[in-house]
Amino acid sequence: MAGSITDRVAVIGMGCTKFGERWESSGDDLLVEACTEALSDAGIDAKDVEAAWVGTLSSSMSGFALTRPMKLDNVPVTRVENACSSGIDAFRNACFAVASGMYDVVLAAGFEKLKDQNVRGLGTVYAGHPVFFSTTTGPGAFSLAATRYLGRFGATKEHLAKIAVKNHRNGAMNPKAHFRREVTVEEVCSAFPIAYPLGLLDCCPTTDGAAAAVIVPADRAREFAKEFVRVKGLGLAVSAGTGQILDDYDYLHFPEATAAARQAYDQAGITDPLRQLDLVELHDCFTITELILYEDLGFCAKGEAKRFVDDGVFEREGELPVNTSGGLKACGHPVGATGLRMIYEGYQQVLGRAGRRQLPTCDLAMAQTLGGIPGMFVAGVAIVGR
Amino acid sequence: MAGSITDRVAVIGMGCTKFGERWESSGDDLLVEACTEALSDAGIDAKDVEAAWVGTLSSSMSGFALTRPMKLDNVPVTRVENACSSGIDAFRNACFAVASGMYDVVLAAGFEKLKDQNVRGLGTVYAGHPVFFSTTTGPGAFSLAATRYLGRFGATKEHLAKIAVKNHRNGAMNPKAHFRREVTVEEVCSAFPIAYPLGLLDCCPTTDGAAAAVIVPADRAREFAKEFVRVKGLGLAVSAGTGQILDDYDYLHFPEATAAARQAYDQAGITDPLRQLDLVELHDCFTITELILYEDLGFCAKGEAKRFVDDGVFEREGELPVNTSGGLKACGHPVGATGLRMIYEGYQQVLGRAGRRQLPTCDLAMAQTLGGIPGMFVAGVAIVGR
Repeated sequence: MAGSITDRVAVIGMGCTKFGERWESSGDDLLVEACTEALSDAGIDAKDVEAAWVGTLSSSMSGFALTRPMKLDNVPVTRVENACSSGIDAFRNACFAVASGMYDVVLAAGFEKLKDQNVRGLGTVYAGHPVFFSTTTGPGAFSLAATRYLGRFGATKEHLAKIAVKNHRNGAMNPKAHFRREVTVEEVCSAFPIAYPLGLLDCCPTTDGAAAAVIVPADRAREFAKEFVRVKGLGLAVSAGTGQILDDYDYLHFPEATAAARQAYDQAGITDPLRQLDLVELHDCFTITELILYEDLGFCAKGEAKRFVDDGVFEREGELPVNTSGGLKACGHPVGATGLRMIYEGYQQVLGRAGRRQLPTCDLAMAQTLGGIPGMFVAGVAIVGR
Repeated sequence: MAGSITDRVAVIGMGCTKFGERWESSGDDLLVEACTEALSDAGIDAKDVEAAWVGTLSSSMSGFALTRPMKLDNVPVTRVENACSSGIDAFRNACFAVASGMYDVVLAAGFEKLKDQNVRGLGTVYAGHPVFFSTTTGPGAFSLAATRYLGRFGATKEHLAKIAVKNHRNGAMNPKAHFRREVTVEEVCSAFPIAYPLGLLDCCPTTDGAAAAVIVPADRAREFAKEFVRVKGLGLAVSAGTGQILDDYDYLHFPEATAAARQAYDQAGITDPLRQLDLVELHDCFTITELILYEDLGFCAKGEAKRFVDDGVFEREGELPVNTSGGLKACGHPVGATGLRMIYEGYQQVLGRAGRRQLPTCDLAMAQTLGGIPGMFVAGVAIVGR
């Protein structure tokens, strides 16, 4: 049976670039920006980094992606590629290496430079895969879940819109978000259609960015930093499915997300996530994704999410704030960076550094990513806290 | 300072496909073949695999690469991509996860399906990289090292040829090698020129294949298997260079290989590798690579390798047998598989299962990979033993 590394590793510094259309910056520039902020926050010199992990879907290759821009000559650097969970899985592997006793100071970074790559950054990167993305796009695949969910449970485009409104409201308070303007339910519902029922404002944008974390053994954290968070749980679940309509799949569940969350909940001792978690950053690549995740992560029963949305449970002032950063919806989704950007939000909130977005209480924060399409996901979870 | 996981994890089963032109098999087929053999060797059912790592340069994407063919639904699978060190780095990360206490039974696999991809599997996969492989090919880049080394140290094409002859002789005894025929010094020296001084028989072929390992905590190994090997040392060193001629680089050293070996030697308590190691599987992508590695891995002083070759030190009957499997030269080099295929040779030799290739004594075996081009390498090392 799987064990745990709960409370044995700590994050002593983090960094995150401004997310957005970073035409002026290369992928190297973004990595340097995020890693330098993380190292500076931790009070660690780059030469003291013993090993590193870098997550990217398609913006570079091999450990060179990080050694060259950061001048980490002959340092062991692993490139992790795990679709939209690349960043969280880079973090996960870095945590294992520290918990194993092999290293004491490691860096986990994630980035993506999507604007220069145009669509190469998304769908077509999988063109060589035997089944994946051969006949569909992200919005097209998730629209299948949206039509099915709305039809089955009587949710409406307005319920989806309320999620976009919430995340844009939060994002307006996040200086690192791609979009910092609020939107209304009316604007979301009347936005240009992308793949029915998803309109432009139901979709996350195409964004450049990077984020990074410095990780050490928890029993040594205080030697390095006054403030830090502990890693409480790590989950990863990868589908064996093919993401095709011919699969026996109902489009109402993301079972990989449930499986990954269960791993992390078990490690962190969480039996009632709605009450025990203080913040969740989850993978709102589309508004429907967030709606279904409320249920699959165990915050409410299947089909109940619309009522929870109407009740404001996941608002910043609600019982379980979700995506206080603005989520993928407002921050954007530079693929390899996203998981670490979510952990960054949790880190800031737990340490009381979230500025205007600061929650009154935040002792336990979860980051959750979902890579792929319905029927074929890589789901990742990281829980950090005091 | 870096620590160690020496003797804390064990390999209880391994598998390796026949390497070669596997037109009849997909990448999925190859992975299933190698993983099934490894699981069967370990006496482990696929459903007992708690987590996995899969190394591939370009033959698939994300953890899906392994979950789908092996039907490991919702299992955590990380794809590691680290150039020609992808397989050894997948193994390394799997070892860390077991040593961390998170998992007790994990799988590390590596594969590449190169024949169907043609050159996509090699040079052009890096076409998007800002500097790498923009103006050169593998043979072209290593020919720079060969001309420089031959000119500086007075080695000859015959010294290189003797390495090819040795590895083909070993490969002829390996049922899983791509090429199983012996060659003569004369044949190697007069083979079709590829990039002077490297001819066709100085170069490894383009090959399909997969290899896999089942890894558990060493203190539980005996519960699972009667025979196993322990992991003694793991090294990885990634260059911050650009692999371009304009770099300040002498083409006579592979410093990344030295750095990675030093990490593993320190962990395994090796101060005199020539005498302490019983077998080395090293990265002979070209004959010149093997020649330079004799020096950079510490078997002899710089410039001395040709004398050691003439003295037969690295023959199967010599003081330190190198590439008893036949190496990349005879086995071929399916990129993501190579590191694990080397560990497989060490595993077989240590357990006395190497058939006609069996060494009289083999208690400590090293696998060593080198990804990239001179001036820009990812070097990996894994040492296993009793």
